[in-house]
Amino acid sequence: MANLIDNEVLQAFITYATIVTLKMLLMAPWTAYFRITRKAFANPEDAAHGKTPEDKKKMLKTDPDVERVRRCHQNDLESVVPFVLIGLLYALTGPDLSTALLHFRVFVVCRFIHTVAYVFALPQPSRGLPFIVGLITTLSMGYRILNSVMLL
Amino acid sequence: MANLIDNEVLQAFITYATIVTLKMLLMAPWTAYFRITRKAFANPEDAAHGKTPEDKKKMLKTDPDVERVRRCHQNDLESVVPFVLIGLLYALTGPDLSTALLHFRVFVVCRFIHTVAYVFALPQPSRGLPFIVGLITTLSMGYRILNSVMLL
Amino acid sequence: MANLIDNEVLQAFITYATIVTLKMLLMAPWTAYFRITRKAFANPEDAAHGKTPEDKKKMLKTDPDVERVRRCHQNDLESVVPFVLIGLLYALTGPDLSTALLHFRVFVVCRFIHTVAYVFALPQPSRGLPFIVGLITTLSMGYRILNSVMLL
Repeated sequence: MANLIDNEVLQAFITYATIVTLKMLLMAPWTAYFRITRKAFANPEDAAHGKTPEDKKKMLKTDPDVERVRRCHQNDLESVVPFVLIGLLYALTGPDLSTALLHFRVFVVCRFIHTVAYVFALPQPSRGLPFIVGLITTLSMGYRILNSVMLL
Repeated sequence: MANLIDNEVLQAFITYATIVTLKMLLMAPWTAYFRITRKAFANPEDAAHGKTPEDKKKMLKTDPDVERVRRCHQNDLESVVPFVLIGLLYALTGPDLSTALLHFRVFVVCRFIHTVAYVFALPQPSRGLPFIVGLITTLSMGYRILNSVMLL
Repeated sequence: MANLIDNEVLQAFITYATIVTLKMLLMAPWTAYFRITRKAFANPEDAAHGKTPEDKKKMLKTDPDVERVRRCHQNDLESVVPFVLIGLLYALTGPDLSTALLHFRVFVVCRFIHTVAYVFALPQPSRGLPFIVGLITTLSMGYRILNSVMLL
């Protein structure tokens, strides 16, 4: 265990993977914040504080801001989770520290830009570009893994 | 390898992570069960057993019970996956066994309560509270990771 | 680290997990391809290239082909992510290489069949069967983990 954690690539991976996973995780309370301020809930039991039955029904709606944060969260699930899974396997294949750091840094920076561009609806390609660069980063690590370890 | 698996924190993590991931995984057949009993499908090819074309069309609908299980499943993807990813990195940083066990136990218990509260539509905060406590557990592990390993 | 990567089960896991995670990851650009060719976007800023305001509004729609790829992607998130998480923990418990390879191969082949069956809307059970077999593969690894490591 001590040996494992002495590895600098793994240390760098642990750092960046934790940061970007925490960012993803925080999309959930952010969605909850929008649901509460926009009074737009998905479950009847969440709208139980409405005064009249009509009030309660009205709160069971979709709201554009809530849906936007949810799409951003979904994109994180589709991008960040593969990065962490592939990144861990990549770190185990023993890449150069500088190459590994480049991958980790580019991906994490891209995902922060992507989140800001998505939630604040900035004009394209401010959201599409970091998405694609992040994708290429993960594909590049995947290519490197299959190139150095391949047991079918 | 043998050394790795001798580590008690990692053993505890493997146990709890497997249990809660299997729980998450079983939301998929649970959704399928609701789709079949409620006759509410998303794909035309799933409704091919309908007798008349009208019957088949009628089965392409959304059903409140199906949607509820799906939301619960989605919340698992948003909460359980980060827990397992962060929890693994946390286990690698060599925490105390008792502190680690506390985190793993609280999270897993919270997620089982969350699932029951969600699927059976129990009044709040029976769903919101375990969600938040589970979130705090994962954040706490993330904080601990960044505190002990930080290579940017 | 060198010891870890010398382990053949882990090498096999890394290979198959990388392949199936990359497959899942590529569902995102596939969805983007359908969104662009079907002119069906979820965000107003993605339809900014429309000539008239009416044109832009028209592009904010759901399209059956886009929704189909998205459902397939979602099923990957629900199936592939648990496979990779459980598979990694399973690889750490030191199973036989042949048993491990059987699990990894069956799962990965099932998911490729599932994707083709889903996106091209092949008649059932060409999609349901590989889904269930893949699920059983993951459950089987989960059972094996809890049978060999159990620290509650």
